[in-house]
Amino acid sequence: MNVLACDMGGTRVKAAVVAEGRILARTAIAALSHRPMRDCLASLADAFRQVGVEAAIRPDECKGIALSFPSLVDSTTGWVLDSYGKYPDAPGTDLAAWARAEFGLPLAVENDARMALIGEWRHGAGRGCDDLVMVTLGTGIGVAAVMEGRVVRGRHGQAAIMGGHLSVRYGGRECSCGNLGCAEAETSLAFLREIAGARPDFSASGLLSESEFDYEALFRHARMDDPCARALADHSVQVWGALVVSLIHAFDPAKVILGGGIMAAADQVLLPISDYVNRHAHTPWGKVEIVPSQLGDAAAIMAAEWLLDERMRVR
Amino acid sequence: MNVLACDMGGTRVKAAVVAEGRILARTAIAALSHRPMRDCLASLADAFRQVGVEAAIRPDECKGIALSFPSLVDSTTGWVLDSYGKYPDAPGTDLAAWARAEFGLPLAVENDARMALIGEWRHGAGRGCDDLVMVTLGTGIGVAAVMEGRVVRGRHGQAAIMGGHLSVRYGGRECSCGNLGCAEAETSLAFLREIAGARPDFSASGLLSESEFDYEALFRHARMDDPCARALADHSVQVWGALVVSLIHAFDPAKVILGGGIMAAADQVLLPISDYVNRHAHTPWGKVEIVPSQLGDAAAIMAAEWLLDERMRVR
Repeated sequence: MNVLACDMGGTRVKAAVVAEGRILARTAIAALSHRPMRDCLASLADAFRQVGVEAAIRPDECKGIALSFPSLVDSTTGWVLDSYGKYPDAPGTDLAAWARAEFGLPLAVENDARMALIGEWRHGAGRGCDDLVMVTLGTGIGVAAVMEGRVVRGRHGQAAIMGGHLSVRYGGRECSCGNLGCAEAETSLAFLREIAGARPDFSASGLLSESEFDYEALFRHARMDDPCARALADHSVQVWGALVVSLIHAFDPAKVILGGGIMAAADQVLLPISDYVNRHAHTPWGKVEIVPSQLGDAAAIMAAEWLLDERMRVR
Repeated sequence: MNVLACDMGGTRVKAAVVAEGRILARTAIAALSHRPMRDCLASLADAFRQVGVEAAIRPDECKGIALSFPSLVDSTTGWVLDSYGKYPDAPGTDLAAWARAEFGLPLAVENDARMALIGEWRHGAGRGCDDLVMVTLGTGIGVAAVMEGRVVRGRHGQAAIMGGHLSVRYGGRECSCGNLGCAEAETSLAFLREIAGARPDFSASGLLSESEFDYEALFRHARMDDPCARALADHSVQVWGALVVSLIHAFDPAKVILGGGIMAAADQVLLPISDYVNRHAHTPWGKVEIVPSQLGDAAAIMAAEWLLDERMRVR
C-alpha cells in the first residue's frame, strides 16, 4: 500500500511516495522554515501532488501521510510540541486536520532523529537488530534508540532524542538547550567555527582559507598536519566517543549507527570512534558494532510505512 | 502471600520475610563477599530460617525468593553475569538450583540499583508515577530507570544501571569500568579521598582531621567555609547535576529519586541538585521533581514481591 512521506528539514523538505520499502517517486523543495506553516503546508501539498503524478498514484488513494519533523513531537496525538525556532507556528498547527482536509488521509508525525533510526532499523543498517542507537552528526547531534524492539519515546516524547544533549563536560560550554557541556555544544557544525576561533593556533591555520568550514574541511586539514585542525579533530573524536559510550551505558544496544553529512569522511570518523568505544565502553557481553548509516538522507522517508502502520495499530 | 527477600550488599546481607508491602521480619548478617558463594548461601539459608521463625512462617510455604545482587544480572535466567570482584564465583553459581534444593522455591534475581528503584516505585517515593529515574549516591553511583511503566533492562541487562558511568568529563579520570570521566569516577565515596588528595589546598583542610572521610564530613567542613571542602562540595554537586540532567535527557522521567547514605545530608545535596537541574534540564513540558528516597536501605527488600510476581507472569 502506498504512503506519502515527508521529511521536513531545516533547509530542505523532502516529499515521496513509498511502498513496500521502495521510494516510487521523490522530490525536494526549499524549506520555508521561517514562514507560517500555512505556506509550508501548501508547498508540501503541491510536492505530494507532483510525486503522485510521477508515480501515477492519486494522493487520496494512499494509506496516509507520515511526517518527519525536526523537533519535539507528541507521536500519539501528532502535535508538534516545540519548534526551536524552525517553523515557529508549528506547535499551534493542527497537522492532522490539514491532512484530512487536503487529502482525506490520516497523518502520523514523529521526530526526525527517531524517523531516521526507524528507517535504518526496518530497511537499512539496523535490519535484524532490535537494540539500536543512532547518532546523526550534522548541524546538531541527533540521537534515537530502539530497545528490545520498541522505539524509545518516554513519558513526554523526549527520551533518547535529547541524547545529543548528554553532558560530556560538566561546567562546559552553554548549549542552546540550556544545559552546560552537551556533546552538541562541545562539537557540532553549529558551534565548530566558534570553538575553532577560541584557539590561539586558529590564526595560523589553513582552515581560515576555507569558504565552507565543516568536518570535511577539518579532517582534510588534520590529515595535512595542520596543528589547529589536528587538535580540533582529536577533540571532536573524544567528544563523540564519550557520547557514544554514554549512550551505550544508557540504552544497552548491540549496534550503534552513525549518520549525517560527516559520514562522507567515514574513515576519519568511524574508525576512531569505534576504537574509542572498544577501549572505553563497559560491555562484558561482547562488543557493540559501530556501523555507518546505509540510507543516508532517505532514512526518515523510509520510516514512513512503519510509522503509519504503528499509528493504525494503536487506533 | 509471603516472600523471602534478600539484599546482598558488599558489606551486609539483609534477609527478610515480606508480605503485602510489609516487612514481617528482617535480619542483617555480615557479607562474606570474598568467600565462595557456597558459604554465602549457607549463611543466607540460616538467615531465612531465622526470619521465618520470627515471623512464624515456614520458608518452604513462601511464594519464592527474590534476590537483589550488586552486579550485572540476567533477570530472565537469574544468573549473575559479572561480579566486579564482589562474590567472585557468583557468575558460575546456579542460584535457582540452590533455592530449589534448599527450600523448594522459585528464585528471581535482579540488580540492586534496579531493585531499589522497583521498591520505591511500588511502595516509596515513586508511587503513582510510571516514569522514574533513581540515583543512589554511595560508594559508587547506582542508577535505574522505569519508563512508561516498564523497568528499563535492555538487550544485555545493563541498560540504565550503567548510568553512573555516563561520561561527564571527556578525557577525565579513569574509572574502574574502563571509561574515562564517568560521574562515578569524578565523584563518589570510592574516589573522594583520591580526588581531595590531588588538591593543593587539601594539606590545610580540616578534612584531614576526619577519621571517616565521607560526604557527611565533606559537607560539614564546607559549611564551616573550609576552602578545600567548599570546592569539593561544589564540584560534587556539579557532577551530580550534570549526571542527573543527562539521565533526564536519556530517559525522560517525571521524577528523579535520590538515595544512598548521602541523603543523611539531604538539604546539602537535594536542593543544590534540584536547582542545577531546574536551570539546565531541557524539559519544555514542565519540571522534573527531584525527591529523596522514602524506603532508605529497605528499598531493595520492598521490591521482592513485585519481582517474583513479574517472574511468574513471564513463566
